[in-house]
Amino acid sequence: MSDLSLADFFRARLRIRGRVLRTPLVESPVLSALAGTPVYLKLETVQPTGSFKLRGATNALARLAEAGCRRVVTASTGNHGRAVAHAARALGIEAAVCMSSLVPPNKIEAVRALGAQVHIAGKSQDDAQREAQRLVRDEGYAYVPPFDHPDVIAGQATIGLEIVEDLPDVEHVVVPLSGGGLFAGVALAVKRSAPAARLTGVTMERGAAMHASLAAGKPVLVDEVETLADSLGGGIGLDNGYTFSLTRELIDSVVLLDEASIARGIVHAYESERLVLEGAAAVGIAALLAGHLGDASAARGPIVLIVTGANIDMNQHRRIVGAAGEAKPETIPEAELETKREGANA
Amino acid sequence: MSDLSLADFFRARLRIRGRVLRTPLVESPVLSALAGTPVYLKLETVQPTGSFKLRGATNALARLAEAGCRRVVTASTGNHGRAVAHAARALGIEAAVCMSSLVPPNKIEAVRALGAQVHIAGKSQDDAQREAQRLVRDEGYAYVPPFDHPDVIAGQATIGLEIVEDLPDVEHVVVPLSGGGLFAGVALAVKRSAPAARLTGVTMERGAAMHASLAAGKPVLVDEVETLADSLGGGIGLDNGYTFSLTRELIDSVVLLDEASIARGIVHAYESERLVLEGAAAVGIAALLAGHLGDASAARGPIVLIVTGANIDMNQHRRIVGAAGEAKPETIPEAELETKREGANA
Repeated sequence: MSDLSLADFFRARLRIRGRVLRTPLVESPVLSALAGTPVYLKLETVQPTGSFKLRGATNALARLAEAGCRRVVTASTGNHGRAVAHAARALGIEAAVCMSSLVPPNKIEAVRALGAQVHIAGKSQDDAQREAQRLVRDEGYAYVPPFDHPDVIAGQATIGLEIVEDLPDVEHVVVPLSGGGLFAGVALAVKRSAPAARLTGVTMERGAAMHASLAAGKPVLVDEVETLADSLGGGIGLDNGYTFSLTRELIDSVVLLDEASIARGIVHAYESERLVLEGAAAVGIAALLAGHLGDASAARGPIVLIVTGANIDMNQHRRIVGAAGEAKPETIPEAELETKREGANA
Repeated sequence: MSDLSLADFFRARLRIRGRVLRTPLVESPVLSALAGTPVYLKLETVQPTGSFKLRGATNALARLAEAGCRRVVTASTGNHGRAVAHAARALGIEAAVCMSSLVPPNKIEAVRALGAQVHIAGKSQDDAQREAQRLVRDEGYAYVPPFDHPDVIAGQATIGLEIVEDLPDVEHVVVPLSGGGLFAGVALAVKRSAPAARLTGVTMERGAAMHASLAAGKPVLVDEVETLADSLGGGIGLDNGYTFSLTRELIDSVVLLDEASIARGIVHAYESERLVLEGAAAVGIAALLAGHLGDASAARGPIVLIVTGANIDMNQHRRIVGAAGEAKPETIPEAELETKREGANA
């Protein structure tokens, strides 16, 4: 199971304490009734940057700072970029975030507001990535990978520690699956402390690089496809060093969701749990609603769904939950795509 | 400052541990920028019943259970009723909730789903209250008051303990003000541990019984008026024994909000904080947005807004946040009332 031990995760926890929240694990009466067994939500939505990514980024940056590094760089404009910017400020080190000139101004402002420098380079994510590599090569910045690094994995693993501490009888942990940093960390922490627990990864039907790689038996490239679970997009790296083999070893099952199911997860979270979730964070709920988490008639123990983040575009959220009141659930995603194409405000 | 000591609050905390969450205190970057000083949200929305009321109810019921009581009753169909039902089940005692025959079926079902017995009596809240009194008199039930009781106050006070522990430099705590159980508990815990901190109560312009009572110098009756902050409605009791005098002694300022301001608080919480809040829980944010929490140019320490609960009718929430995207903020509450009158789905 890799060289990462529970002691590494306890070390990570000490390192991030006071900078990252210990998040609540809350039972959902509605989902418990649906599943026929207690269902708990692990609410990473309340983290200061609105997603679990702060755990791995803070642990990785704290390790770099301990080693004397004063400047870090990343090319993510999403949850990882926000997390790196926030963690760098908390640790008193410098962060640069590289972006292409096509990134919308509000995303640039959001990163600047967290105190990071923004480097605009070229017209694609690849150009931004090259600028990040240049800063590493020429200017002594340390690169902070979004998922494929032991310190990032150990940071995310603290979620697994908290789950087993709060619910030692946990039987099934359901994790949004993307690059595998969250999955590998949580799975290691849970299986090392509660070995009978099952681990399910949930991702979208189309454009899921880890699922395609697991099927191929090695890291492969996939085409990126637009999805409500946009935080789960992106490759796992053909030179993946950690998360592919860990995920392959530790995963008990994979659930693939279509866009309609993900939308239903977002609507249910809003309507019944009073939670505003990004698509990637709603996939656990969506998998349960779609009946993918096992037979309700079988006697089972508690299920935990990791609810990873809240950073959805609010106009998109409004359209998804607003439409649900008027349209049949089956028609939500089509209506949503229609609206996107037209650029109108439904 | 009354006979309640910090030790009573630590005792309450031990009593409710494992049944009530220690909730996150999260900085809001947007509100901090607006206020010119760090602003934190204390998120009671994540409590199992969706509101802070679980703290006081669990402490009061645990004390009753210690004294040998096996059956409790209340007449609230709102956050207190849910809290009593939930706490009773957790403690293995019996709960009855008395309601009039006019209470909508979904509210009855919600209480039954939490394992409480429902007693239907008469056609008004007064009739339901009389039925509760009858159960106390004739059938040996213990009545659990919603706010005016030392055990309830001590339960709510645990919020104040957590705030000062997490943020010892807190300068200003902003509390939704209704019957005063939350206000008195938090104010006692905060002022006894961080004596320089200021305490503000926020309530609605019309129908605020505690504000009218403070102005009159004694508990008075007010007419109930429909408001978005419906959880703040209701009287404080002409025979108020604790919360009126404690609130009068401990409160530094009162802020009164109109309906438009409360709606803006709900919209801001959704749009910028990704939180679904009931009106009563949004009043701290609303007070800040309306400029009622002091001059941003003055040097000040951190502000904490207690965000008390998430139990809003979701059709109402959808209308309020949906309308905000299309209408000017000034027109929200009128549109909202219009919609209510017509019974249409905006």
